[in-house]
Amino acid sequence: MILPNEFKLIDEYFRPLAGPEGLNLADDAAILAVPPGEDIVISTDAMVEHTHFLGGADPSLLARKLLRTNLSDLAAMGARPLGYLLTLCLPTTIGNEWLRGFAAGLAEDQKSFNVFLFGGDTASTRGPIVASITILGAVPWGQAVRRSGARAGDLVYVTGTIGDGILGLAAARGEISDPDSYLAGRYNLPAPRNALPISGLASAAIDVSDGLAQELGHIARASRLAITVQVPDVPISDQAARFPDRLADMLAGGDDYELVLAVPPDREAALVETARRVGVKITRIGICHAGEPEVTLLDAHGEPIALPRAGWSHF
Amino acid sequence: MILPNEFKLIDEYFRPLAGPEGLNLADDAAILAVPPGEDIVISTDAMVEHTHFLGGADPSLLARKLLRTNLSDLAAMGARPLGYLLTLCLPTTIGNEWLRGFAAGLAEDQKSFNVFLFGGDTASTRGPIVASITILGAVPWGQAVRRSGARAGDLVYVTGTIGDGILGLAAARGEISDPDSYLAGRYNLPAPRNALPISGLASAAIDVSDGLAQELGHIARASRLAITVQVPDVPISDQAARFPDRLADMLAGGDDYELVLAVPPDREAALVETARRVGVKITRIGICHAGEPEVTLLDAHGEPIALPRAGWSHF
Repeated sequence: MILPNEFKLIDEYFRPLAGPEGLNLADDAAILAVPPGEDIVISTDAMVEHTHFLGGADPSLLARKLLRTNLSDLAAMGARPLGYLLTLCLPTTIGNEWLRGFAAGLAEDQKSFNVFLFGGDTASTRGPIVASITILGAVPWGQAVRRSGARAGDLVYVTGTIGDGILGLAAARGEISDPDSYLAGRYNLPAPRNALPISGLASAAIDVSDGLAQELGHIARASRLAITVQVPDVPISDQAARFPDRLADMLAGGDDYELVLAVPPDREAALVETARRVGVKITRIGICHAGEPEVTLLDAHGEPIALPRAGWSHF
Repeated sequence: MILPNEFKLIDEYFRPLAGPEGLNLADDAAILAVPPGEDIVISTDAMVEHTHFLGGADPSLLARKLLRTNLSDLAAMGARPLGYLLTLCLPTTIGNEWLRGFAAGLAEDQKSFNVFLFGGDTASTRGPIVASITILGAVPWGQAVRRSGARAGDLVYVTGTIGDGILGLAAARGEISDPDSYLAGRYNLPAPRNALPISGLASAAIDVSDGLAQELGHIARASRLAITVQVPDVPISDQAARFPDRLADMLAGGDDYELVLAVPPDREAALVETARRVGVKITRIGICHAGEPEVTLLDAHGEPIALPRAGWSHF
């Protein structure tokens, strides 16, 4: 047993990460004074060793990816991040070096995204590492962006580039070449789009954790309309463009953590201007229209593309 | 693999538990409209198979204990429960019967404690079951009860009875007799004291998850004062009273989920009256006074009792 005891572990690694809401991690719970005129937005995401990451993964990257996947859920709601609670289930073979790396990763991304630790729980396990975060954000009353708000005629936009996540996983596994490690980097350390304030601009949004096609399907079903995407318009990184035969995987693969947005035509100019101002690349890829709630992906010839699978389910 | 897929699992077992804040579990996050004039109180607690519960444990009891340990943290802050997020990491050998039991347990206690599911995450694992809850509550602005608010002269009260938790674990393991299963019942299904509204009555509070002596120590250190407890005054159930030789274990053992309260003398009468009204038994066991932040446990002869260990750490 090299894992430090619970109190020492909190003292040494996690207390320095706590915001004032965390009460120095010395109470039964955190207290959040809610900003007047705002709703609280809450989401949770877990990562399990061997399921979501390989044994021996860099603890700093792991911590940052976990925090970022949670931040991405807030970005998709148009909510401003406030802070998070962390649950860590650790084998007793985990030592100080791993903990130091994990806490350092959190510290770095806390600065980048202006969030703080509010609290958490630690437990020992005989099994794989399990790390989970519950994140809290704020959004003006009634202004959270939902999946269900898209209307016929709304334009479909995505941030960044699509497909790097699944190619990055293949690269990390050594299945494809990745000379500048760009793809693996995109998989290991996604860039959630919290910088883009979509509240008031997008009518619906979702983040691409389980594949673009599946996420579009969620918006289509929740908003009860059809979505048609021009696949040649889907933005692909130069590095991903080296694998044209993997296009279907890229449309169905997860871990991109980009945003898919439905945008009313009269707000398109404002969105484009906002994205320019904050430096987030956005690309128009399709349109919402009346019809059965389904997603049609059209190739350069206007022919529908069939995907091998609809997205990622953990089971 | 008998575990149903993620969407089916959510549809069948968890969507029926969702409150309106959970947006039908069909969005990236939950949206909580915070009651005007209130702070949000947030806590999280995890349970790991083989660490916190035995393999093969009744999933309904497991779910209820997990929810109740989280509710107990809110009770200790004087906060009114609102809802919770659930993270489940499950081996693929878990089937519908287990899930049905787990969801039924949550449904039952949701009714008892008036809380709803706000959201969650599910993942598969090659290891033990991990279930964790992040719970949210509300308390009037600035009225949350902290560990640090006790003052010299405050009286120390506890709810219910102390020591049933650790004896119940021994009973569940067959180490001691438990003819009416009362002790095992107290261990398997704690009764968090959310019915007792301590905000405005207690100056400090904590729940007894890791042992009375250790929890008193937390209050003593956070409030920077000494606490002296008359051990003969500590309330013990009739069933626990059969094991006088285990008294030290009972004072140091965890899993009671009773509240320890520091109460200013001028609020004592109001607390006693409130407890009577809501039907929660409370007992005065000691006093806070100036001195080094430590806990002294006195026996019937006024002699200090030494405990074999200070409480429970998971590592």
